Parts: sequence; structure tokens; C-alpha cells
Amino acid sequence: MRLAELSARSGVSTATIKYYLREGLLPPGERITATQAAYDEGHLRRLRLLRAMVQVGRMPVATVREVLKAVDDDSLDHHDRLGAAVGALPHDAGRNGSAADPEPVAEAERVADRLLELMGWPPEVRGSARAMPAYRMLVAALAEVARFGYPWDADHLAPYGRLAQELAVTDLDFVERYGSPEEQVEAAVALTVLYEPVLLSLRRLADTAESYRRFAAPRTGEAGA
Amino acid sequence: MRLAELSARSGVSTATIKYYLREGLLPPGERITATQAAYDEGHLRRLRLLRAMVQVGRMPVATVREVLKAVDDDSLDHHDRLGAAVGALPHDAGRNGSAADPEPVAEAERVADRLLELMGWPPEVRGSARAMPAYRMLVAALAEVARFGYPWDADHLAPYGRLAQELAVTDLDFVERYGSPEEQVEAAVALTVLYEPVLLSLRRLADTAESYRRFAAPRTGEAGA
Repeated sequence: MRLAELSARSGVSTATIKYYLREGLLPPGERITATQAAYDEGHLRRLRLLRAMVQVGRMPVATVREVLKAVDDDSLDHHDRLGAAVGALPHDAGRNGSAADPEPVAEAERVADRLLELMGWPPEVRGSARAMPAYRMLVAALAEVARFGYPWDADHLAPYGRLAQELAVTDLDFVERYGSPEEQVEAAVALTVLYEPVLLSLRRLADTAESYRRFAAPRTGEAGA
Repeated sequence: MRLAELSARSGVSTATIKYYLREGLLPPGERITATQAAYDEGHLRRLRLLRAMVQVGRMPVATVREVLKAVDDDSLDHHDRLGAAVGALPHDAGRNGSAADPEPVAEAERVADRLLELMGWPPEVRGSARAMPAYRMLVAALAEVARFGYPWDADHLAPYGRLAQELAVTDLDFVERYGSPEEQVEAAVALTVLYEPVLLSLRRLADTAESYRRFAAPRTGEAGA
């Protein structure tokens, strides 16, 4: 397809597509004439991923480039690509903006390590996790909970770790529906970004429903149990 | 305690405490002299909650006021207070900033309603959920997933709904550790804000571990199974 059709089908303006091409975030199309190129379904998929990261994830272009480097790294095996791509996603700077003191951070690292151990992760996975932005995000979040005086020990947090693992099984089942390794890696990145607000809103709604189940006073007019 | 001690113990500057007092976000202390007031543990707790909402949740003061109105509403029973307080938390504007078209939003509402039905919520809970910011956040997030062409039907999302309910059981077990209804409502609001980044980072790390489990090529030098 030509640039105009790629723009129409992706919903991304031709000016933005040209910018992505110049920045190397979108691979060049197949050159047809001196001024025209042809694009394929892979370009469409890549644009969808770019929009998810830039528009929904509000990621700066430099970070997008880092994530795409992992997505496109043919020298890695499938797991390493998928893990590197999801692991390279930035933590949300808005939520963890405050610079934490070094002291609680060191303690938070011990808690994070113990938590991953309680989750039964093999040592090589724990080792590579420490290099990921998601691990820094976990340590910063734990230090924040500590700063506010709420419990943050690994034993207390273990149920959240267990549920995160069940979420991951659901996530990966979903990623595996996609055919090619390239599509799987792209889907893993896009769904991490797109499903986070779905998950957070469901948790808040479920909190209110659970609170209703536990605390709601029986309404008058209701038949007795 | 006096203002200086309240400031030292809460880590909030006296200028900020005076601002919260002027804005009515912090109830006045007990007047001792014309220029001095005494504050108690309740003031300390409230300051901790204010910091969680303002500093970590980055909520504007007008929204903080809305949430606190629910926290402090004695006319509601315990469930309604807790549900109203957590439900009044704003969705993260940064993640869902784009104005969605009305057409996908109407469809997203149908999907959200069906999802809550699949989660087995009683009709009265589903009815009151529709008035919450968390419900608008869910609808916006679903419309966003749809806009990007990823599956977003209620049947596909049902496992996330089930896991959100298990999270809610863990959340509420935790909230119930606190003694008084006031402390429980405050803990529910603070932990919703503080535990969200913990949960998201654990999910990303668990995604990479699950990807390792499924896709990692056996390393050379490993003993055969």
C-alpha cells in the first residue's frame, strides 16, 4: 500500500509517519519510484504499536527507541526479546516522581528480592529482573509505601505477587494467540500498556464490590435470610 | 501535640499544614490559646492520607476534597463510605487523556456492563458502580483497547475481572486489619494509590518470568531433564 493508504488505515497522519520514518522508528517501505514506496501489514502493525506507546503510554521517543531495539533484536531468542521489550517499558514517572532516600531504597531492594524469591522465581530470572526498569519501579513503589508507614514486608505482599503471576499466565496465553514471534513481541508490549488501566479500574471497582459484600448493612424491605 | 511536632512527625512543612487547614482538608486542632492549637493522632493520619493523594497520586486539591467528603460522611454506612471514597479517586488523566468518540464509548459501556455481570456482581452494586470515576476509567480504557484493534470482548476480559476480585479480597483483608471504621476508610484510599505501582511492576516482572518459563531456549551446559 502507498503512504496515503497506510495513513488512512492506521489513523496516523502522513506527517507523523514521515517523522517516524526519519527517526528510524518505522522501517522504510519498499522503494517503487524515486518518490514512492510501498508499505505492508508489518508497517501497519508497527504504527499501531507506536501509537500505543506514544499516545496511550505517553512514552518519550528516546524510550520508544529503546523498547523497539529489543523488539527488533534478532540476535536474542524469543523469550529474551519478549522479556527485554516488556522489561524496557518505562515506569510511569508521574507516579514515582519523588527522589527517594538511599536508605529506604536499599531496604526496599532487599524486600523486592525476597518477594521474587517467595514467588518461586529461578535465580537466573531474578538476576536478570534486577536490570529492568520494572524492578526499579517496584523498588521505588515499595520505598514509597514504607515512607507512608504502611506495611510493606515481603510476606504481606506475597499474595499480590501470586496474583501478578496469575495475571502473567493470562497475559501470555493471550500473547500466544498471535502467530509469528514478531507479532507476539509487539502484542506483549502493546497489551502491557493498554491493559494496565483496564486492570486498575477493575481492581477499584472490585474493591467497592468486596466492601459491599463485607460491610453493607441489610437494606430495609429486604426479605430476611 | 503542637503544630511544630505535627510537622516533624508527619514530614509535612508547617506552611503546607496551614494551607490544608485553611482549605478545610485538615480539621482544625483544639484551640488552647488565641494563637495555639493542639493536634492528635487523627490529624497525623489525615496528613499521611493527604500526602498519599497529593504527592503520590498527584491529585488536584478539588479532587482530594471530593474524596475526603466521602471519607468523612457520617450519614453513610461503613460500606458506602469506603466504596464512595475509593470510587471517588480520579482515573489517571495522563493515561486516558484522549477524548474518545461517542460511538466506541457506547459499545465500551455495553462491554463493561457485561463484564461486571460475568463477575457475578449483584445488580445494585453494578448500578452504583456506573456513577464512579473508576467505571468511566474502565470504559475509556476498553474504548482505547478497541481503537487499537486488540480484543476487548467481555468473555476475553473475564479472567482479568476474576483476578481483580481476588485482588479485592486481599485488599479488604488488609483494610480490615485496621481497627476503627475511620482508619479503614483512610487505609483503603491510601492503599489504592500506593499499591497500584507495586501491582503494575509485579505484573510486568511476572510477564517476563512467565515468558522465560514458556519460551526460553535451554541453555547449553544445562543438565538434561
